[in-house]
Amino acid sequence: MTEQGIHIEKIRREMQAAGADAFLVTSNANLYYAVGQVVAGYLYIPVEGAPMLFVRRPVGLDGEHTVYVRKPEQIAEIMAERGIPLPNSLMLEGDSLPHTEWLRYEAIFRPAGIMNGTPAIQRARSVKTEAELELIRCSGKLHAAVYRKIPELYRAGMTDLELSVEIEREMRRAGNLGIFRVFGQSMEIFMGSVLAGDNACEASPYDFALGGRGLHPSLPVGASNTILRRGMSLMVDMGGNFTGYMTDMTRAYSVGKLTEKAYRAHQTALEIQDMIAHAMRPGAVCEEIYNRSVEMATRSGLDGCYMGVRQQARFVGHGVGIEVNEPPVLGVRSRTGLEPGMVLAIEPKFVIEGTGAVGIENTFAVTTNGNEKLTVLEEGIIDLE
Amino acid sequence: MTEQGIHIEKIRREMQAAGADAFLVTSNANLYYAVGQVVAGYLYIPVEGAPMLFVRRPVGLDGEHTVYVRKPEQIAEIMAERGIPLPNSLMLEGDSLPHTEWLRYEAIFRPAGIMNGTPAIQRARSVKTEAELELIRCSGKLHAAVYRKIPELYRAGMTDLELSVEIEREMRRAGNLGIFRVFGQSMEIFMGSVLAGDNACEASPYDFALGGRGLHPSLPVGASNTILRRGMSLMVDMGGNFTGYMTDMTRAYSVGKLTEKAYRAHQTALEIQDMIAHAMRPGAVCEEIYNRSVEMATRSGLDGCYMGVRQQARFVGHGVGIEVNEPPVLGVRSRTGLEPGMVLAIEPKFVIEGTGAVGIENTFAVTTNGNEKLTVLEEGIIDLE
Repeated sequence: MTEQGIHIEKIRREMQAAGADAFLVTSNANLYYAVGQVVAGYLYIPVEGAPMLFVRRPVGLDGEHTVYVRKPEQIAEIMAERGIPLPNSLMLEGDSLPHTEWLRYEAIFRPAGIMNGTPAIQRARSVKTEAELELIRCSGKLHAAVYRKIPELYRAGMTDLELSVEIEREMRRAGNLGIFRVFGQSMEIFMGSVLAGDNACEASPYDFALGGRGLHPSLPVGASNTILRRGMSLMVDMGGNFTGYMTDMTRAYSVGKLTEKAYRAHQTALEIQDMIAHAMRPGAVCEEIYNRSVEMATRSGLDGCYMGVRQQARFVGHGVGIEVNEPPVLGVRSRTGLEPGMVLAIEPKFVIEGTGAVGIENTFAVTTNGNEKLTVLEEGIIDLE
Repeated sequence: MTEQGIHIEKIRREMQAAGADAFLVTSNANLYYAVGQVVAGYLYIPVEGAPMLFVRRPVGLDGEHTVYVRKPEQIAEIMAERGIPLPNSLMLEGDSLPHTEWLRYEAIFRPAGIMNGTPAIQRARSVKTEAELELIRCSGKLHAAVYRKIPELYRAGMTDLELSVEIEREMRRAGNLGIFRVFGQSMEIFMGSVLAGDNACEASPYDFALGGRGLHPSLPVGASNTILRRGMSLMVDMGGNFTGYMTDMTRAYSVGKLTEKAYRAHQTALEIQDMIAHAMRPGAVCEEIYNRSVEMATRSGLDGCYMGVRQQARFVGHGVGIEVNEPPVLGVRSRTGLEPGMVLAIEPKFVIEGTGAVGIENTFAVTTNGNEKLTVLEEGIIDLE
């Protein structure tokens, strides 16, 4: 079976469990998952029988079950010509599909039942195959190799933005595709964030672990043109999209010495990471792991600055894959049990007012008997001076 | 009146025309338009009375009509407490709002009538105010200043990607926010594209003017790691997002001499641009201008490679603003009449097999008696050798 065939079987198991006859997949991330490339088109997955790819663009694709269409209304006609019955119950990507498109597909298929298929396909995607894990491993190695160069990119007196631009350049030269794929329409960021000093305290509208004021009210997150000064910490948190599958990774740096509290907080973050790495095995419940991380922060007297100060994120990890914010979430109200093949970014962080952010982030794969770290690099605070 | 007050009045005129009592604005681009910054929240615009901003994040906003909420269900309660009636007819952003969110807001407000407000707010946004034009002018100047440096960034033997990375770096150093805001979930690209040689012939799934194979099937558009060789043309088409308002601009370059046909096609593209610049004034109909551009390409015997070869785009221009693909479109079936304040990117291009893409793109504002070019820079093919 091809890799995409395996993905489609995983989707079908979810469809069967929910009683769906068919799934019409139309979003770029899900088409990449199920077809192996982004197309402008519609993948029709019946619960049994061959999936059909109805394509608008690009020209030049072939395949026994690939049919060119100008508009989705042709799909029903073509299915009728081929003697394929219309589905009784149809899944659509309800959590991402714009409402007017949902209505359009509903009018085309007129199913007796129509279901939001987003949770089903997200569950299928959350457990990676060996081939997907290999793509994420590859992203992780390239990601770490770029971070290894960060100390060489630093120049005294530069701003957070200037350092970010040099890291972005190294990322791109190493093959990072650049786009930071996020699920949902509300989160947006460029390639990631570099937070220096008290800019890490600035609250952002987005659901990232930390904020930053950003450069402009149209994109209020990340670097803010802060000059890097002695005594500041600097947190680099960029997406590693080298293979269509992303890794997420954060390292902390300092300009000269930081306060004792900052080093202590960083050490606590490393200990929380160790606790999570130990706890993160099949069957473990996400929320319970998160709660234990909060307890550790509290015992260290650092709960007031855990995952932010003025605004605190209520999670410490999140699934990654084709998109950077996949399920499961290691956070409040997340009762998901971990399974082998799940890939999560774990990011315990603290924000110390007057210093900046410290802490760590690595991407891990859950294995049958524990987990595997996919972003391997020195984890201490590196002094850039 | 504040700038955002003017924007809200423009939205209200569209609401009145459609008979809507209220508009709940939730997308980042529209919140930036109506609030002046991106927030995680909901702007409730009644057709009369003060708009109310219900915010989840960031912390720290204030204002007489700003109220913090944890979830949108609180909006109806708060309105009831303040004696604000629920709307009879409500507009939501139906062309971008995910279906499940649409249902959620519908359940909260239970309006007798519910309408897709996307066309209304897009129409409001398509005619820019003087302050918005000034932001676009500013983006255009910075955009052109970066392009002026392109010949210095070229090194013999480099790839399209390597040159792209150096241009991206200059863009970022000049203050480009990086993100390329597009409307809709189907189009995605990094900062723009650099197309070298026959990579310009490669069809892409996306609805951009030209394609390119890209670096990976998860993002099949743009540079493809093509080594720049003598006789190739090179087309640089990056987004200029310096001010929250974007400019779009393309210039063509060559490595040494190109074929006679390539220069002739470039000259035809400049003539098409001149024709459009002359025709693009208040009252002109978009489709008619596009059709005249096709006629000019046909008269030059270049219709087979106008706006692509294997796959041809059926437009020659598009609105730009907060997003890069705003109405109106200068293309087939676009009966919109131009109005003063509309801003359009005009991009006549040809793809010459064996050479690459040639042509031009500039961003223009429609004025009361003609138009103004906002991206001013040498327009001939620049030889990088």
